[in-house]
Amino acid sequence: MSDENTGSTGEIQLDNGVFRVTRWTIQPNGVIPMHKHEYEYVVIPMVTDAMHVRNSDGTSIVADLEAGVSYTRAAGSEHEVSNPDGTDDIVFVEVERL
Amino acid sequence: MSDENTGSTGEIQLDNGVFRVTRWTIQPNGVIPMHKHEYEYVVIPMVTDAMHVRNSDGTSIVADLEAGVSYTRAAGSEHEVSNPDGTDDIVFVEVERL
Repeated sequence: MSDENTGSTGEIQLDNGVFRVTRWTIQPNGVIPMHKHEYEYVVIPMVTDAMHVRNSDGTSIVADLEAGVSYTRAAGSEHEVSNPDGTDDIVFVEVERL
Repeated sequence: MSDENTGSTGEIQLDNGVFRVTRWTIQPNGVIPMHKHEYEYVVIPMVTDAMHVRNSDGTSIVADLEAGVSYTRAAGSEHEVSNPDGTDDIVFVEVERL
């Protein structure tokens, strides 16, 4: 999944019925558009950077990513994530528990 | 879990009954001693390097890790992993599906 319009790329590395693993890249000023997570998941940042998260309820946060420091989110999370002030790509690996 | 004798460190970042996420660091000439995996898991390398894997059946391979390129292994895998020729730490994040 690569989308010049959004400036983000999702490369599925594994989808075996147990895990789905996607490596996401958000270019400077890119966005992964609003989406809802069907499965509980873990994010492993590959970079240390600030990623902007706008939730479907309108609230926003800045997620301070740290390379190698994971975090988890529940199924049902619905948000858009972006790299508005970025000078570098934001890259993270998402592991979903199918 | 940090062990000066083995030269490896396992930092559990999450253990919530759904996932267990551990960040492993193997120093140059360090080893994570022989262990058996109870759960299916995914590895996300944080570095690009060669990691030596000795299986419990005596076979050995060199796993060419690439930063951000994940791989999965089945429950029951039993091996020792080491960094024998290393000049740098080998670091990876392991996500187990509990």
